[in-house]
Amino acid sequence: MRLSRYFLPILRDAPKEAEIVSHRLMLRAGMIRQEAAGIYAWLPLGLRVLNKISDIIREEQNRAGAIELLMPTLQLADLWRESGRYDAYGEEMLRIKDRNERDLLYGPTNEEMITEIFRAGVRSYKDLPKNLYHIQWKFRDERRPRFGVMRSREFLMKDAYSFDLDAEGAKTAYNRMFVAYLRTFERLGLKAIPMAADTGPIGGDLSHEFIILAKTGESQVFCHKDFLGFEAPDADVDFDDAAGLQAVVDKWTASYAATEEMHDEAAFGAIPAEAQVTARGIEVGHIFYFGTKYSVPMKALVTGPDGKETPVHMGSYGIGPSRVAAAAIEAGHDDAGIIWPDAIAPFRVGLINLKPGDAGVDAACEDLYAKLTASGVDVLYDDTDDRPGSKFATADLIGLPWRLVVGPKGLAAGQVELKRRAGGAAETLSPEAALTAILG
Amino acid sequence: MRLSRYFLPILRDAPKEAEIVSHRLMLRAGMIRQEAAGIYAWLPLGLRVLNKISDIIREEQNRAGAIELLMPTLQLADLWRESGRYDAYGEEMLRIKDRNERDLLYGPTNEEMITEIFRAGVRSYKDLPKNLYHIQWKFRDERRPRFGVMRSREFLMKDAYSFDLDAEGAKTAYNRMFVAYLRTFERLGLKAIPMAADTGPIGGDLSHEFIILAKTGESQVFCHKDFLGFEAPDADVDFDDAAGLQAVVDKWTASYAATEEMHDEAAFGAIPAEAQVTARGIEVGHIFYFGTKYSVPMKALVTGPDGKETPVHMGSYGIGPSRVAAAAIEAGHDDAGIIWPDAIAPFRVGLINLKPGDAGVDAACEDLYAKLTASGVDVLYDDTDDRPGSKFATADLIGLPWRLVVGPKGLAAGQVELKRRAGGAAETLSPEAALTAILG
Repeated sequence: MRLSRYFLPILRDAPKEAEIVSHRLMLRAGMIRQEAAGIYAWLPLGLRVLNKISDIIREEQNRAGAIELLMPTLQLADLWRESGRYDAYGEEMLRIKDRNERDLLYGPTNEEMITEIFRAGVRSYKDLPKNLYHIQWKFRDERRPRFGVMRSREFLMKDAYSFDLDAEGAKTAYNRMFVAYLRTFERLGLKAIPMAADTGPIGGDLSHEFIILAKTGESQVFCHKDFLGFEAPDADVDFDDAAGLQAVVDKWTASYAATEEMHDEAAFGAIPAEAQVTARGIEVGHIFYFGTKYSVPMKALVTGPDGKETPVHMGSYGIGPSRVAAAAIEAGHDDAGIIWPDAIAPFRVGLINLKPGDAGVDAACEDLYAKLTASGVDVLYDDTDDRPGSKFATADLIGLPWRLVVGPKGLAAGQVELKRRAGGAAETLSPEAALTAILG
Repeated sequence: MRLSRYFLPILRDAPKEAEIVSHRLMLRAGMIRQEAAGIYAWLPLGLRVLNKISDIIREEQNRAGAIELLMPTLQLADLWRESGRYDAYGEEMLRIKDRNERDLLYGPTNEEMITEIFRAGVRSYKDLPKNLYHIQWKFRDERRPRFGVMRSREFLMKDAYSFDLDAEGAKTAYNRMFVAYLRTFERLGLKAIPMAADTGPIGGDLSHEFIILAKTGESQVFCHKDFLGFEAPDADVDFDDAAGLQAVVDKWTASYAATEEMHDEAAFGAIPAEAQVTARGIEVGHIFYFGTKYSVPMKALVTGPDGKETPVHMGSYGIGPSRVAAAAIEAGHDDAGIIWPDAIAPFRVGLINLKPGDAGVDAACEDLYAKLTASGVDVLYDDTDDRPGSKFATADLIGLPWRLVVGPKGLAAGQVELKRRAGGAAETLSPEAALTAILG
């Protein structure tokens, strides 16, 4: 993408209303724009990040056997009356009347609707297990929306729902998502630690939050330092192997890890002092097993092997891509701007032309741009007339993993400059060597 | 995808409430499910079609230089008060109050919001032209929603907005989208004809609807038969060549083409009788040039080359992917079910195992499934225990382009059966020859 043709409304000054660093940087980098309290437009740069996050989540959901569909944003209030949550949900639910005075609501979550879809389509235990998910905008009418897309009112959520014949099957379904989440966050370039959690308004018996560590995180967390060295299972993990999945989950739940809410000072104190990690964390995923909480009142029944109808056991599994985008910035930034993990960077390379109009520099840039693009590398090519200082500031602010600079002086010596945003010195090398370094 | 693990809730009987064939077939094929009047969930099979349509639209928008972003579904009423449309829009606008009694609305279109985003980010004519688009859910509170996703209340829309310094630039921007739409519909496998149109509530001076012909179309249309032979420009069309774009538009607007609303009997009568085409049509796209209608009241100004501030000239350009899915079915079906164009079929191949459990048949199916999948072909592999008749009926209903059948009898002779859904006899051939035929 040529910057001269792109839409990247950089703000040079930090907006006053932004209280946390990710919010400040996302506004400054032209990633998002507030359209109402807690309601944001995702500008082109931000949307690229959001889509890369969603794509990784989707790939890992699919790998784990979940099936994607798409539920609408608006729901009938009657559906929530079936589960009993319509009155219970409180003021965070955005309630709407249409022109015919029917009660609708903007879905804050989808347990009811997916249960309705499931019960209409599945009759027999033979069709189980099933895991259905979607990635859709949701709305929670926070009293005081703030922190940008970290806690917005309209937010994107991947929510998956599992259906099993019994508690044992449901536990395997839960483990499947647990493992998929480990893989997802690792691929996103984030260190996420599962921590036992309260079930809150979703309800249920078993729940884990996935927390990433970030100095500027929203809450205090406590864990064993072993977690910092754990690696997620490989891509060939067998999601049909219940025992294998359980072994992974056992490993990741054997050591102490807790949010402030669930913290047990005594249990934490029992860990050797040198293994105690106290840090700031951000919740980026939450999984629940809640058995028959929705299937009983909503009559989501299947015929079991014994010919009898039985309510299905369910779980739900959420990751908020819009929140993950902000959390990744909280975990990766410096004074100059964002430092993206490679996997979710909006572009992999920022190519800077120091002297547009200089035939040699233009030609060298066009050649690098064409070769990188042809190799499937996303490039943002700064071909604008801005001053070099401004171009470097923009590059640091938007935080692309590689910065490749072409200027007349270096080029006369057959050289360009390559630098990793995440650190390390700028390297002077030939254009071919730069391509090799980027393409790995 | 193995059907045994998929979620495909086929309905054997046509639902009573569905008045048009696309609605009936989408419900029966397990593509969509109604969640409220005019509000649908897109089940896995339907979502695949919707995504394929959106992807083609996106590729052609990008090719034409449009930049993707994503605006939220909810908007502030105040924004629409700036343009004067808040009170004018009428009952189709879903008006919402949040917990703090702020007036919101579910966006039915985005001229106001994109103008607000543009004016905050662009100051100079040097940044023009710009075309910003998104693909997002919108809501129009139809008095009597019907016809399934053809006229739903919550619907998916690609809407693009162009910004230019003057009317001449805006005309080129309009032509760019006109040509992009020709390419888009041709790639979608649909014959679309541009017809001069009323501008309606969007307003403006120039407008075309893109109408596809379908026997069961919603309205009468009239055109010269030349249109049926026209081909859209190739992928290498130069979207920076204003004269070249104008030539394409001239060709596609020189002959008579009109919807019932705009029909001129005398002009149509002037066409030789043998060239007069009267048919049923479905609107699948609509483009508008409306000059400064929004930029003047909303003060979307840029500094021109003369240093003076001037309101930008705008256009907007819509295609509804959810509507296109239904329109494609209206244009392609028979008594047995849907006949998808290859480009938007949910899967390209339906592989049918006539005897699951038979080791030879299972092995042959697995081999074909693996080879097709490895070649990037989407396969829905019917590995269920259903009777062959039921499998064939499902295959016809969901309308995948290729049906590949493997049974014990044929296999004993080293043969499988291959058939195009769109017509033609079933062919008996070796598995290798079948692969060659499918992979082309």
